[in-house]
Amino acid sequence: MRRLSLLRYSCALLFAALPVLASDQDAVQYREAVMKTLDEQSAALGEIASDAIPDDNLVVHMEILALTASTALKAFEPKVPGGQAKPQVWANWADFSKRMTDFAQKTAAGAKIAKEQGKDAAVTEIIDYANSCKGCHDTYRQDKK
Amino acid sequence: MRRLSLLRYSCALLFAALPVLASDQDAVQYREAVMKTLDEQSAALGEIASDAIPDDNLVVHMEILALTASTALKAFEPKVPGGQAKPQVWANWADFSKRMTDFAQKTAAGAKIAKEQGKDAAVTEIIDYANSCKGCHDTYRQDKK
Repeated sequence: MRRLSLLRYSCALLFAALPVLASDQDAVQYREAVMKTLDEQSAALGEIASDAIPDDNLVVHMEILALTASTALKAFEPKVPGGQAKPQVWANWADFSKRMTDFAQKTAAGAKIAKEQGKDAAVTEIIDYANSCKGCHDTYRQDKK
Repeated sequence: MRRLSLLRYSCALLFAALPVLASDQDAVQYREAVMKTLDEQSAALGEIASDAIPDDNLVVHMEILALTASTALKAFEPKVPGGQAKPQVWANWADFSKRMTDFAQKTAAGAKIAKEQGKDAAVTEIIDYANSCKGCHDTYRQDKK
């Protein structure tokens, strides 16, 4: 584990009595964990959508994406610049939070559609997600240097 | 998105009629997407367990971890060396697959415990996960170079 090793935290919990205080770095690392999860699950869904990988896990990946999307807005609530988030996230909070809420609702509906209607319907949803991701990233995410 | 851009795949689906064939690289990238999701969700849980981040999303992260764990064994079924997976994964498949199955069961039970019993019980589960992760990684995962 690259950062914030779970084991390291577990050991800290087991062996240290020092209080752990929230910090700006924690807030940035937390939202990066959430957004990287969306990234990795999108990659998995992209591979299944393109038939590069069998679709056994398709519905589960759609459910993971939806659950992760449901955690994302909370991860941006601390107004802490850093990482790839542009300051516009907080300057345009009403728009940003609406987009995140819409994405969570869309992916929850998409997971249900995938479960009930199968792969073709799921792929239509996945393409729609991709457009939502891109629209938000174009406005609110800085490119990596 | 670093690899396997969802948008790229979506565009490929929309605009190309070329068949997409499974490849060893696809198999490696898919299992890396699954394992990186476990990594990122473990990091998020580590931050919540250590009180660095509020616990609003605790149960959802436990559920995401459990769902992701349920997809992991399938991701290793193709016997394709590469990435950080040691060849022992497939040489000792009975042991590896038992560990992965146990981890999926353990995390599913842990998500239920977190939902029903709250944070203290969840943290006990998270520490147990960390030991499971480390045990398996010590045997089956190569360090990054």
